[in-house]
Amino acid sequence: MSRPIPVEIIPSHVHLSHEDHAKLFGPGHAGTISHALSQHGQYAYEETVEVSKLKRSITLRVLGPERTQTQVELTPSEAALLDLKAPLAKSGDLTGAAECTLKGPKGKVKVKAVIIPKPHIHLSDVEAKQLQLVNGATVRVEILGEHPAELAGVVVRVHPTYRPGLHVHGDIAREYWLTGVLHARIRDTHE
Amino acid sequence: MSRPIPVEIIPSHVHLSHEDHAKLFGPGHAGTISHALSQHGQYAYEETVEVSKLKRSITLRVLGPERTQTQVELTPSEAALLDLKAPLAKSGDLTGAAECTLKGPKGKVKVKAVIIPKPHIHLSDVEAKQLQLVNGATVRVEILGEHPAELAGVVVRVHPTYRPGLHVHGDIAREYWLTGVLHARIRDTHE
Repeated sequence: MSRPIPVEIIPSHVHLSHEDHAKLFGPGHAGTISHALSQHGQYAYEETVEVSKLKRSITLRVLGPERTQTQVELTPSEAALLDLKAPLAKSGDLTGAAECTLKGPKGKVKVKAVIIPKPHIHLSDVEAKQLQLVNGATVRVEILGEHPAELAGVVVRVHPTYRPGLHVHGDIAREYWLTGVLHARIRDTHE
Repeated sequence: MSRPIPVEIIPSHVHLSHEDHAKLFGPGHAGTISHALSQHGQYAYEETVEVSKLKRSITLRVLGPERTQTQVELTPSEAALLDLKAPLAKSGDLTGAAECTLKGPKGKVKVKAVIIPKPHIHLSDVEAKQLQLVNGATVRVEILGEHPAELAGVVVRVHPTYRPGLHVHGDIAREYWLTGVLHARIRDTHE
């Protein structure tokens, strides 16, 4: 059993590659940083982009820093409403990612980049060692509170800079009715 | 300035009338209560319904107790993706509400019931009196945290049984990047 871990319901968002950033916002454009995120070195830009397929679209915030590949993270219900067959995937794994069009103030780009992010836990290397967990492990998590819930298949992500945090997408919040002040606890370190 | 108020990002959901409940789940069907919500006497059922327009749909949880009118509460982005022109409205005001089809295990019903819920604050009569606020007042709210945000046009709802809580829909969480442990404070009691 781990110490309680903060739960964050991560809003749907977009990570851009340097190249796609330039196509959407213009060459040499530097995004305006709005605020730091809970993970060190990660931040939200003021900028948003339109994620669309055919006539339907949703406007999402761009996160930084830039990545080697553009990645769009949606909830299953948003993907379904956009007619996108997005796979449930770990961040960075764009095998089978769905194709959408991104539109910014200076241009459009078609990308095969849409995934549903798998629920995951960030842990520092020290915390992971204490829990005998390695990067990429899968755990079951109990979400604490007045109406406890369990989540299986939660991926562990380890990095010296990580702060503990369970990240889930908004459909999970809807399904499990996660609102208010919440914490999580790792229940089983093996499934 | 008020004491900090818990912020709840309320997932999209459905309230059913007794009549519509019977049409969707069968006459005499009693929903299974999953858990109590933060407001006394309100609860979430295990049951869900499909909210659809034409070929697109989203599955939402049913809340109880039953109401005099069926009401579907969506985020603006969900409404747009479903092609529903849902008005931003106070709970209970279905003037101009959009039409959708609800589907349950035993039937379907077409309802003019879809709104985008206005952000609102629940206060007990005692708390409202202390803040010199009356039911239906509109306030501006500062969401506290590492990256404070302001919300205008927040409706005050007063009832002796209410617990303090700022209720916002999921698009506001996405727009303001509200994650983790959050509290709010009333900033101006008059706009």
